[in-house]
Amino acid sequence: MGIRIIGQKLPDLPWEERPGNDDPVWRYTKNPIITREAIKGANSIFNSAVVADKNGYSGVFRADTKELIMQLHAGRSRDGLSWKIDQKRIEFQSEEPEISYFIYGYDPRVVWIEDRYYITWCNGYYGPTIGVGYTYDFKNFYQLENAFLPFNRNGVLFPRKINGKFAMLSRPSDNGHTPFGDIFYSESPDMIHWGCHRHVMSPTTGWQSTKVGAGPVPIETSEGWLLIYHGVWTSCNGFVYSAGVALLDLEKPWKVIKRSKHYILNPRMLYENVGDVPNVIFPCASIQDADTGRIAIYYGAADTVTALAFTTAGVLYDFLEEFSYR
Amino acid sequence: MGIRIIGQKLPDLPWEERPGNDDPVWRYTKNPIITREAIKGANSIFNSAVVADKNGYSGVFRADTKELIMQLHAGRSRDGLSWKIDQKRIEFQSEEPEISYFIYGYDPRVVWIEDRYYITWCNGYYGPTIGVGYTYDFKNFYQLENAFLPFNRNGVLFPRKINGKFAMLSRPSDNGHTPFGDIFYSESPDMIHWGCHRHVMSPTTGWQSTKVGAGPVPIETSEGWLLIYHGVWTSCNGFVYSAGVALLDLEKPWKVIKRSKHYILNPRMLYENVGDVPNVIFPCASIQDADTGRIAIYYGAADTVTALAFTTAGVLYDFLEEFSYR
Amino acid sequence: MGIRIIGQKLPDLPWEERPGNDDPVWRYTKNPIITREAIKGANSIFNSAVVADKNGYSGVFRADTKELIMQLHAGRSRDGLSWKIDQKRIEFQSEEPEISYFIYGYDPRVVWIEDRYYITWCNGYYGPTIGVGYTYDFKNFYQLENAFLPFNRNGVLFPRKINGKFAMLSRPSDNGHTPFGDIFYSESPDMIHWGCHRHVMSPTTGWQSTKVGAGPVPIETSEGWLLIYHGVWTSCNGFVYSAGVALLDLEKPWKVIKRSKHYILNPRMLYENVGDVPNVIFPCASIQDADTGRIAIYYGAADTVTALAFTTAGVLYDFLEEFSYR
Amino acid sequence: MGIRIIGQKLPDLPWEERPGNDDPVWRYTKNPIITREAIKGANSIFNSAVVADKNGYSGVFRADTKELIMQLHAGRSRDGLSWKIDQKRIEFQSEEPEISYFIYGYDPRVVWIEDRYYITWCNGYYGPTIGVGYTYDFKNFYQLENAFLPFNRNGVLFPRKINGKFAMLSRPSDNGHTPFGDIFYSESPDMIHWGCHRHVMSPTTGWQSTKVGAGPVPIETSEGWLLIYHGVWTSCNGFVYSAGVALLDLEKPWKVIKRSKHYILNPRMLYENVGDVPNVIFPCASIQDADTGRIAIYYGAADTVTALAFTTAGVLYDFLEEFSYR
Amino acid sequence: MGIRIIGQKLPDLPWEERPGNDDPVWRYTKNPIITREAIKGANSIFNSAVVADKNGYSGVFRADTKELIMQLHAGRSRDGLSWKIDQKRIEFQSEEPEISYFIYGYDPRVVWIEDRYYITWCNGYYGPTIGVGYTYDFKNFYQLENAFLPFNRNGVLFPRKINGKFAMLSRPSDNGHTPFGDIFYSESPDMIHWGCHRHVMSPTTGWQSTKVGAGPVPIETSEGWLLIYHGVWTSCNGFVYSAGVALLDLEKPWKVIKRSKHYILNPRMLYENVGDVPNVIFPCASIQDADTGRIAIYYGAADTVTALAFTTAGVLYDFLEEFSYR
Amino acid sequence: MGIRIIGQKLPDLPWEERPGNDDPVWRYTKNPIITREAIKGANSIFNSAVVADKNGYSGVFRADTKELIMQLHAGRSRDGLSWKIDQKRIEFQSEEPEISYFIYGYDPRVVWIEDRYYITWCNGYYGPTIGVGYTYDFKNFYQLENAFLPFNRNGVLFPRKINGKFAMLSRPSDNGHTPFGDIFYSESPDMIHWGCHRHVMSPTTGWQSTKVGAGPVPIETSEGWLLIYHGVWTSCNGFVYSAGVALLDLEKPWKVIKRSKHYILNPRMLYENVGDVPNVIFPCASIQDADTGRIAIYYGAADTVTALAFTTAGVLYDFLEEFSYR
Repeated sequence: MGIRIIGQKLPDLPWEERPGNDDPVWRYTKNPIITREAIKGANSIFNSAVVADKNGYSGVFRADTKELIMQLHAGRSRDGLSWKIDQKRIEFQSEEPEISYFIYGYDPRVVWIEDRYYITWCNGYYGPTIGVGYTYDFKNFYQLENAFLPFNRNGVLFPRKINGKFAMLSRPSDNGHTPFGDIFYSESPDMIHWGCHRHVMSPTTGWQSTKVGAGPVPIETSEGWLLIYHGVWTSCNGFVYSAGVALLDLEKPWKVIKRSKHYILNPRMLYENVGDVPNVIFPCASIQDADTGRIAIYYGAADTVTALAFTTAGVLYDFLEEFSYR
Repeated sequence: MGIRIIGQKLPDLPWEERPGNDDPVWRYTKNPIITREAIKGANSIFNSAVVADKNGYSGVFRADTKELIMQLHAGRSRDGLSWKIDQKRIEFQSEEPEISYFIYGYDPRVVWIEDRYYITWCNGYYGPTIGVGYTYDFKNFYQLENAFLPFNRNGVLFPRKINGKFAMLSRPSDNGHTPFGDIFYSESPDMIHWGCHRHVMSPTTGWQSTKVGAGPVPIETSEGWLLIYHGVWTSCNGFVYSAGVALLDLEKPWKVIKRSKHYILNPRMLYENVGDVPNVIFPCASIQDADTGRIAIYYGAADTVTALAFTTAGVLYDFLEEFSYR
Repeated sequence: MGIRIIGQKLPDLPWEERPGNDDPVWRYTKNPIITREAIKGANSIFNSAVVADKNGYSGVFRADTKELIMQLHAGRSRDGLSWKIDQKRIEFQSEEPEISYFIYGYDPRVVWIEDRYYITWCNGYYGPTIGVGYTYDFKNFYQLENAFLPFNRNGVLFPRKINGKFAMLSRPSDNGHTPFGDIFYSESPDMIHWGCHRHVMSPTTGWQSTKVGAGPVPIETSEGWLLIYHGVWTSCNGFVYSAGVALLDLEKPWKVIKRSKHYILNPRMLYENVGDVPNVIFPCASIQDADTGRIAIYYGAADTVTALAFTTAGVLYDFLEEFSYR
Repeated sequence: MGIRIIGQKLPDLPWEERPGNDDPVWRYTKNPIITREAIKGANSIFNSAVVADKNGYSGVFRADTKELIMQLHAGRSRDGLSWKIDQKRIEFQSEEPEISYFIYGYDPRVVWIEDRYYITWCNGYYGPTIGVGYTYDFKNFYQLENAFLPFNRNGVLFPRKINGKFAMLSRPSDNGHTPFGDIFYSESPDMIHWGCHRHVMSPTTGWQSTKVGAGPVPIETSEGWLLIYHGVWTSCNGFVYSAGVALLDLEKPWKVIKRSKHYILNPRMLYENVGDVPNVIFPCASIQDADTGRIAIYYGAADTVTALAFTTAGVLYDFLEEFSYR
Repeated sequence: MGIRIIGQKLPDLPWEERPGNDDPVWRYTKNPIITREAIKGANSIFNSAVVADKNGYSGVFRADTKELIMQLHAGRSRDGLSWKIDQKRIEFQSEEPEISYFIYGYDPRVVWIEDRYYITWCNGYYGPTIGVGYTYDFKNFYQLENAFLPFNRNGVLFPRKINGKFAMLSRPSDNGHTPFGDIFYSESPDMIHWGCHRHVMSPTTGWQSTKVGAGPVPIETSEGWLLIYHGVWTSCNGFVYSAGVALLDLEKPWKVIKRSKHYILNPRMLYENVGDVPNVIFPCASIQDADTGRIAIYYGAADTVTALAFTTAGVLYDFLEEFSYR
Repeated sequence: MGIRIIGQKLPDLPWEERPGNDDPVWRYTKNPIITREAIKGANSIFNSAVVADKNGYSGVFRADTKELIMQLHAGRSRDGLSWKIDQKRIEFQSEEPEISYFIYGYDPRVVWIEDRYYITWCNGYYGPTIGVGYTYDFKNFYQLENAFLPFNRNGVLFPRKINGKFAMLSRPSDNGHTPFGDIFYSESPDMIHWGCHRHVMSPTTGWQSTKVGAGPVPIETSEGWLLIYHGVWTSCNGFVYSAGVALLDLEKPWKVIKRSKHYILNPRMLYENVGDVPNVIFPCASIQDADTGRIAIYYGAADTVTALAFTTAGVLYDFLEEFSYR
């Protein structure tokens, strides 16, 4: 039978067939799909989140200004490939303007839960922490309380409540470039108060020996939550960001069923090796089709551009069968 | 009129009169009051918490073993000076034994809220975070969920709900000796899920230029919450821990009304300058008498022994008037 | 009226028209203009200084040997684009041969003041400091006393005396790769003794959050001294050098009238992103035409080659109007 | 007369004539010669060792897996250019299976001594140290005791006994990226016990100011042992690896007769500047022809691919005459 | 039956009875026994080695000069308590004067093996490594080859050959204050060449969480080699050195039979907490009586003075039964 | 004849005879002479400067507040032992109030030159640098321009012009605890502009292996300038400050005639080993009698108290004969 994606049908998602090699993930041949030109005055557009909606696709994009201040912009696309991005950054409205202010935001994720699109991002509040907001239409955005105390990055919501509570993965950090990092799982009854923190996974070896963090919103499948995540290795010249995949228990997502020992994607194209931060691929979003199992992954490259890659739930599942820790 | 402590009368609390100098806090002349001898096989007993109860005083004590593993022990005293400490460490019972396990614990605080004594401490769970538990009798102890994701230290509960929610101060940290640290305020409807995180105060200058963290449970007064806290300065030979005082808004405790520019106590006695960690004074608990405003502060010295010092709400308030940041 | 350059006419300076975008500085389309081939046995030629003189243009060039020792060479050009560089390094003559010896030199600046060309550079004397010398003809070079005690870099003279004294910008540093750095202003009655040190500007945010240092010799204009400077940002993979612009008070140049919040040039071409030190653009000299306001900027790229870019005083001034800190 | 290589004739070694410049080493025009495609599932193949044998050429190759774990593979080639590499990694057999286990191996060197091919590599045993093994046929491999205590890297055997003992160069290190490193010489009567450690050379200036380590097996010549070695410079963006050459005394190889002040090869091609670790060239093996003095050098580039370069003993010797420390 | 020391009878060794507590090691009541006054012009005398010989006791002492250069001096005592130390430092004679020179030496150990007293120490040779020498009479000293490549410290010989070879414990290090360190075992057929390196033990928790190193020469007993060793903990104010005990297999001493989880001695006396390096106790030698099992331990305190402590093989063995890792 | 002090007679300077040992400097038996009690509200008084004047002695004292902010206070004494210190800190008047403001000041030196007392200190101006001021009466103080750009400490003036110019020693530093430091010499025609910077001495070995800095104002003698200086050694627990002595050429004071290899004073009394910064002795001033050659040295101890020690020019000179580098 194999693995099945539980969720939306998306027959028209961006797609290219697998080339004749064994790579579990293959790049879009016309990468990068978004460059700095998409926003006038942007330094770079990368590490961005995309969802399918009734008009095609919408997204929240990390765009660094020429001051090199990290901002979020909304954007829309018919086909998921060609994007029109708002020239003006998102300005969140907040019920607590005094508190939940927005200083900077980066590495957003977007997910539909129940009645709206939730956005999480790395938010500056006396250090990096997880900002939370929502929108109904990608036009008006509302900011909620920060989910956690500083210092935290890579907050990623699950696409539905689990055991009656909202659920989020995140990666506690320090206030700088953080040479360590584990993924944790937390729960909330109200998207405001968070607790019941569970450890999910730690760095191990090789490409994921320095730190790991959740990537796109986990994909629900018949076998568990399919989690694409990033791992970091420290060479004598700095951090190298690659991507791996894991399968988490559906009801207790802090239990790791399988986890890839090999990366599924690592920096090897010139647009991934050269840029503001060399040797970074950083997946932030995926869209998938429940019928075919096809998955399109949006990832930032070299902290400079946005790129696209493809895989299927089946390919990833087979890969986990073959290249997991035992 | 002056400042009045809101709370319990405690006419028999340990006390010595102020000596003829201007120091806002004065040491007990028979310090230290607790040394390693109080627990057979202990390396040191320090950074410990004490409350008044119907039998006199009870407490939770940090006692490092000769492995140098940090443990918590319960103890009892008639007069607050002479302590009998359980030779066996506290073993928390947990409804979630698989999760809320206890690897190590240190720097406890104890506080009565509504119907029981709550204990918070620095708990090891893939890094330091804030452990939470409770007891009715200092004999049986129950552990709840960790309040926050790692990395955190110095979680200190307020002695009553504020705006209908439990309230806690804490100091987010990294996974080592943390050369930075601010105090934050968080709220919880159920002592499990925490949110609405507010920044309270940052390091500033001199003795508190590296990091600051809450000390004893805040003392409710007519003028605001009286918070004794520690501050750290980094000399060329490491960290030096001193103590200061602040006044927080009663309803919005993240608003600092006054904050001492001068320390109120710093390491200068041989038992504070010499020991496992030289030059540390670390206040963890206070007991106070609402009638007289007298306050007895329990503090760890040189990470080796427990010592006692005295002040009054009035003296601290006057000190804040004179030596605060403006 | 707009801003006017006060100084020499230079109608034949290297020039290309602004392309159809809003970038305040545009690159020469045939970059890089100087590569290692210009000196036999050189590892790299970059971070170099150029002035217009009666024969066209002359310059002092940083050329690292294949030992990777930093040396200065003189060079000449008819058009400012095609350069003939002396194969032998500059050997300074000194009245104090015992003291002002030359161990290594890098990042030179050249400026005509009153009766001669002065050269400043980073000079090795028990650590980096500011070397000072002069020439009348770019053939014979004379070395003066080092301007400052170590550790210092990026000493840049103003092109005339200010309030009767020579004036220099510099960036105090440490003895290594210096993760901090502010620009200061100093005065000298005799080009030997320096004092009246004034702070000019500190790092701020984004691309200039780690350190800042003066670039080319300040350009005198009707509105103030136009200063192109470099700023450094620290990614998880090291330093990234970009360029910004500021306007300084004519009589009290330590007073910053405006300062760009956005960079005016940052590394994004392959010859800027890839080389001995990736992601570096480092402007060291400019030549300008008082009539048209045209400015040609010489900058080092990736610590490997020398490149050229263009702007005008008006464009920079408008940019400062739009993208400055307020 | 000039310098003569003492050793095997190898008229058919890979070769290209020197281009019309003065570079002492020139790259193969079809570099890189080995990429990750040579082993299915490899991340990269680099820093590898090659010897001439009766079938042409054989080698031991560093191939990092997609876990980024460092492994060794055997390979064979008719012409030294086109390589067939075993898809399965080398599994050493050991007389002491309990002890000399193989966790990871990298940066191998191979040399024929007396009756067999010895392999040395950086072996993981509670930190990096020098693994030693041998083979008769590049099919079966046998592991001996580690030569040294951790922490060590770049163990390189001499191709014959010296004064009746095996001889090895190595570079003691720390357990991380080691910001220092000297070359030492050690002796062994039995390839098991090592002693009589002699210091050979330290870092000096420029490209070799951080650390130095032996490269290919030293080449015996009429004038001494010709040693190609790597040197490391620390830029503000990390380590840069280049190569130099030295001449060591034939009988007391710890005595350095000459040592190049200039590098003979440094990273400047895109495949050397861009990859998993930018700006690395790392020579690990050479093959040479005693008749013509021709030398083919195999080196890793950017920790990603294997490349080839050429020189002759005479060119290196002349280079040493001209560009050595005095 | 219990544990029996295998070796010399020494009925008159320094001794005091165990006081009425459970400490496994008890201090000499007249500590310190040697201070800087014992050598004219010494800064400090500590970390020194002592053996019983026909005249009572002899030793090799670390005495730092007022330059703070580490030197070794010989000394003699009738009773092991009152020491006469040579005012002139040991000058080793060497068959290889050019090579095995003596730059500095510290932390000596002394042991009789077969026909002479061997001395090992931390010897400076392009970094710290293990110096080896011998004497017949503590008057003339002869230096052999350094046992290992740098960087190494705490080389400790076993008192007899094991399996036909000399045997040594050591702790590989880096070239500075080394924040890591494991104990290894190595063998030599000739006291010159060393090999067959085996890992013995790593840091674990608490007082021994940073590094561990062998202390006195291992004591042969009926149950295994009794090894007193030091362990280091890193507080926010630096290193704290304590002592533990382990039992090693007699024939395969790299196999740890038992290892203490608790320290047996840690810094808590003023002469241990205060001095050139606060909070250090560092055992370097022991003498023991096979009949009674009594052991006298010589240890350095605060890197300033030499102190003495007592225990018995039986007490240590019982302690290992009770407080070992399982 | 021996060495003679050139300068003032001071028959009544504080004095105690040399005790019966060979120490070149001996402590006052009633140390410390000044503690925090001398200023109400002071945390500590140390590293302070003293001169003889017509009323006995005057001085400028470093007194850290209980904020731990470093301030300067004036003081007076009849006998040089018993001091009356102004309770109010020095407030410098400045002709350039906008620029030469006083944020903090520490480690002052005081010297009479020509017509007034000059004070130099470590002054905060965007980092530590050398503040310069003067007084005629120790009541009114005037501040001049900072002598140097940041970052600098330990600026010490010579007591007369040399070759027609004011002369100063200083120690360039970084903006933190600076793990390096050399002494330089600089000249000024006007006490405002400084140049002709000459290197004087670097760290060497042992107690002075990390950094060195000038101590008291150099003492003019028949044999050269007698300079007492501090040297720093880095133990695994931080910095240790000791004192040494050097003799500088009278006309070219950057030429070192002799320099002590051994320290003349190092921390070994409880008031030197224990305090805010353990293991610090820091000489800042001396007074001397030209007739007898007696010298009284004022030094800070443990960054907490002020102490006194004695020597003579002859004893120091003999010490230099015996214990200098050659």
